[in-house]
Amino acid sequence: MKMSKMYIPTLKETPADAEVVSHQLMLRAGLMRKLTSGIYTYLPLGYNVIRKFEQIVREEMNRAGAQELLMPALQPADLWKESKRFDDYGPELMKLKDRHNRDFCLGPTHEEVVTDLVRDEIRSYKDLPLNLYQIQTKYRDEVRPRFGVLRGREFIMKDAYSFDLDQAGLDRSYQAMYDAYCKIYDRCGLKYRTILADSGPIGGDDSHEFMVLAEVGEDTVVYCDSCDYAANLELAESVLKLREIDGSDEELSAVATPDAKTIAQVAEYLDVEINQVVKSVLYETQHGELVLALIRGDYEVNEVKLANLLGVVNLEMAGDSVYEELNTVKGFTGPVNIGEVKIVADHSVSKIVDGVIGANEIDQHLIHFNFARDLDLEDTFDIREVKAGEECVHCGGELKFAEGIEVGQVFKLGTKYSEAFEATYLDEAGKSQLMKMGCYGIGITRTIAAAIEQNHDEYGIKWPLALAPYQVHLLPLGKSEDVIKKAEELYQELTSTGIEVLLDDRNERAGVKFNDADLIGCPIRVTIGGRSLAAGELEVKYRQSGKEFTISTGNEATKIKDLLAELA
Amino acid sequence: MKMSKMYIPTLKETPADAEVVSHQLMLRAGLMRKLTSGIYTYLPLGYNVIRKFEQIVREEMNRAGAQELLMPALQPADLWKESKRFDDYGPELMKLKDRHNRDFCLGPTHEEVVTDLVRDEIRSYKDLPLNLYQIQTKYRDEVRPRFGVLRGREFIMKDAYSFDLDQAGLDRSYQAMYDAYCKIYDRCGLKYRTILADSGPIGGDDSHEFMVLAEVGEDTVVYCDSCDYAANLELAESVLKLREIDGSDEELSAVATPDAKTIAQVAEYLDVEINQVVKSVLYETQHGELVLALIRGDYEVNEVKLANLLGVVNLEMAGDSVYEELNTVKGFTGPVNIGEVKIVADHSVSKIVDGVIGANEIDQHLIHFNFARDLDLEDTFDIREVKAGEECVHCGGELKFAEGIEVGQVFKLGTKYSEAFEATYLDEAGKSQLMKMGCYGIGITRTIAAAIEQNHDEYGIKWPLALAPYQVHLLPLGKSEDVIKKAEELYQELTSTGIEVLLDDRNERAGVKFNDADLIGCPIRVTIGGRSLAAGELEVKYRQSGKEFTISTGNEATKIKDLLAELA
Repeated sequence: MKMSKMYIPTLKETPADAEVVSHQLMLRAGLMRKLTSGIYTYLPLGYNVIRKFEQIVREEMNRAGAQELLMPALQPADLWKESKRFDDYGPELMKLKDRHNRDFCLGPTHEEVVTDLVRDEIRSYKDLPLNLYQIQTKYRDEVRPRFGVLRGREFIMKDAYSFDLDQAGLDRSYQAMYDAYCKIYDRCGLKYRTILADSGPIGGDDSHEFMVLAEVGEDTVVYCDSCDYAANLELAESVLKLREIDGSDEELSAVATPDAKTIAQVAEYLDVEINQVVKSVLYETQHGELVLALIRGDYEVNEVKLANLLGVVNLEMAGDSVYEELNTVKGFTGPVNIGEVKIVADHSVSKIVDGVIGANEIDQHLIHFNFARDLDLEDTFDIREVKAGEECVHCGGELKFAEGIEVGQVFKLGTKYSEAFEATYLDEAGKSQLMKMGCYGIGITRTIAAAIEQNHDEYGIKWPLALAPYQVHLLPLGKSEDVIKKAEELYQELTSTGIEVLLDDRNERAGVKFNDADLIGCPIRVTIGGRSLAAGELEVKYRQSGKEFTISTGNEATKIKDLLAELA
Repeated sequence: MKMSKMYIPTLKETPADAEVVSHQLMLRAGLMRKLTSGIYTYLPLGYNVIRKFEQIVREEMNRAGAQELLMPALQPADLWKESKRFDDYGPELMKLKDRHNRDFCLGPTHEEVVTDLVRDEIRSYKDLPLNLYQIQTKYRDEVRPRFGVLRGREFIMKDAYSFDLDQAGLDRSYQAMYDAYCKIYDRCGLKYRTILADSGPIGGDDSHEFMVLAEVGEDTVVYCDSCDYAANLELAESVLKLREIDGSDEELSAVATPDAKTIAQVAEYLDVEINQVVKSVLYETQHGELVLALIRGDYEVNEVKLANLLGVVNLEMAGDSVYEELNTVKGFTGPVNIGEVKIVADHSVSKIVDGVIGANEIDQHLIHFNFARDLDLEDTFDIREVKAGEECVHCGGELKFAEGIEVGQVFKLGTKYSEAFEATYLDEAGKSQLMKMGCYGIGITRTIAAAIEQNHDEYGIKWPLALAPYQVHLLPLGKSEDVIKKAEELYQELTSTGIEVLLDDRNERAGVKFNDADLIGCPIRVTIGGRSLAAGELEVKYRQSGKEFTISTGNEATKIKDLLAELA
């Protein structure tokens, strides 16, 4: 395409309300514009990238045996009442009424519609397995839309739904989707990790998330250096190194620790190791239950693990009134001589024999704490947040941290929806059986943003080749007729061989063209300058690596094709 | 694709609630399923056809210089209030509120969003012309959704919007879209007519509709045999043959016409020609105005022309009370000695000199009616409905009628929206000017239905080659290993050369396979039977023409390719 004919409104300034880099660059490079909070128009350049990614997704989904269809976005509430999600889904579900006052919603996901479709059509075991997918606009009324398309209210998703005879079939379908997702992100040249995930409110058993790694992510991914293990920090595990020392068997006794409220202050004041001090953190659950979590002083409580252990969705740090109620003092709380509270101890405190705990009195701690002797707890648990550098529980390798953006997720739903919708088939013996379902999502617009988070510098986007709106950005400089003629020839020649070229034929200064080229981020920039052309050379720059070099004129199209093959 | 792996739920029975053929066949051939009234899921085969058509549309739009983007379906009400359409659009506009109680609507069209986009970005005459298009899901809350996707509530449209400096630019943009539309429908192999159209409530000046001709349409198209003239019956004109006779100059006089209420009965009773009798039809407008329309007995009043002439949107035949109020009698109404009523006469009565009119009394007519003498009317008008066989006003050719389905429309909007949204640019002199806009729609799902209305028989669909979900339907019959092997080989060979093949590898009887092949309607059916294969032959049938013949084995793929080239 010629830029003079194309609508690419690039911006010099970073828009004020764009907090993250992908959001800033999608606006600045003219990929999209905001219509209203969380809702965007994808401009020609941006939509070009979206369609490229959609095509990669489509090819790999088809290759994996999934079939493309298109389900409605406008869905009757009745279906959502059947699955009990019309109310359960909460205010993120956008609801409306038609002119006849019937309830509808805008689909954030399609388990209801697809299960309804299949239950009416599939009768026999011969019709399974079946995997149906679509690439479609979805709606989620986020309470605080932000980060551009990373957390928008109208966005594009690929969602697939598999139907199988039994668990073994579901396992196969799940694996096929898992593998297809790996191929998709590999083809896009993205660095990503697959991690075990909580299946969350969507229900079901197994689940994996696909996280694109980036400097600034929405989630922290913990992964092993040596093996495949990776998990969301919220769920990650590591090898615990217990502190086994022969402590004296002295009795618990109170010592003054004036103003020493933090673990570090206590350890310093008493001249003990931090890992000898027990941290006691007081929580209140959503149901009002009070919980005292114990963990070794060198660790932090992972609240998601604690909440999962307690079987609650929400935990909060206890308020001041709770301290009063339990006859304790903030900063000096401990598990001995405290009021009525459930105590949950992390594995890390289980072997402590000469520890320090809060005395539940101001400026007082107890020393010579022996966990096994002084507390009557049957078990300890893993409520510990993993730290970078710890050992992998699977292979002993080193755990590393990375920031990640979730771009895909696969779930084994099992029979949650087939039960609600009575989606059954007759097996070989003529007996009615529930279908086993899986569901598999890829955030299309989200992946584009994640790709930018992973591939950019201060000047703009550095598109991976497969996602680039154009492979080659051709920059004729100045008004020399030779330059313009060479640019036009090369543009025609490259285009005719199927290479996607953006020709900057605008009447702009070199600086403007270079800046826009960096901002838009096509993988190969080819500059045609008057002087270098006269010297028989074109200047090439790789956007990703920054490498710059020249190629001689003559057969330029072939040479550029070779460069592209090298980058692929 | 292999049918054993594909989800094509064909139906033997015609679904009860499907009134028109395209709706019936889209359900029966497994192209779609209803989710709820006017809202459909497009199944793999149907979505395949939709995507093929979208690609044709996309190619021709790009070729015409339009640029693809994607605007949101969820639109803030504020924009629609700015154009005054939030209320004006009526109950077809689906409205909703977000969690913060802000008003939104689901876009039935995107003039507001695109004009808002452009007004914020385009500053200079150098940035114009611009033509932006999208292929997107639209919403219209039809009061009575019917005919499948011909009148649905969620449907796919291509909508384009052009922005020009001046009228000459708009004329060029309009022509480019008009030409692109012709190419699109030509490529699809559809028989269509472009007709002059009312621009209707969308506003603006010129407008053309693209009508696909079919046995049963939603509109009647009047077109000339000899020239390009074509119009919706509602607007069509023809040469009027006036009846010029030398009548006697006798006075109006009443005659008894017992029980003669219709024109035919009156003419017969009085032994005059039908075209000597004047038909008087009483209407009431939406504002309560009473109108008596006069037209020659051999013609009918065109109510759209009459309404346009009166400047009203709605007309109805007058009720009984109106006849009482005007001191007249149904069946014997006439323009002389009637109460207070506006009289509108068609050109066809202007020369009547010895005519017959109702006497406004039961069983009475007046004879010797002389239009010029007996009525004090300044003008006559064209409120006449054209009849097939009449003469074209442009060339005298014969007018023919066809049933049509509107699949596309182009409008010159002018400055209606650029004025409402202050979408201006600075011209070369630095003066602010309003952009001239055009808008251009193609009903994607509607065109698919129209293509089926035009291309089917009692057994199923007869896809035009360009829209066919698969070009070749390969039918191995029986369980002979030779047949299965040959089918598999041919499938692989054809597929590898880019031909789209549907292989019926299901374990079904020949009758079932033949029926499904006719129903699905791929252009070329190739049958591999055990006996004919042994005789060195494959059976070919063209779905469109019904032509059947055999080809000899050996190089079958090349032969089939040649057949396809012949059909294209």
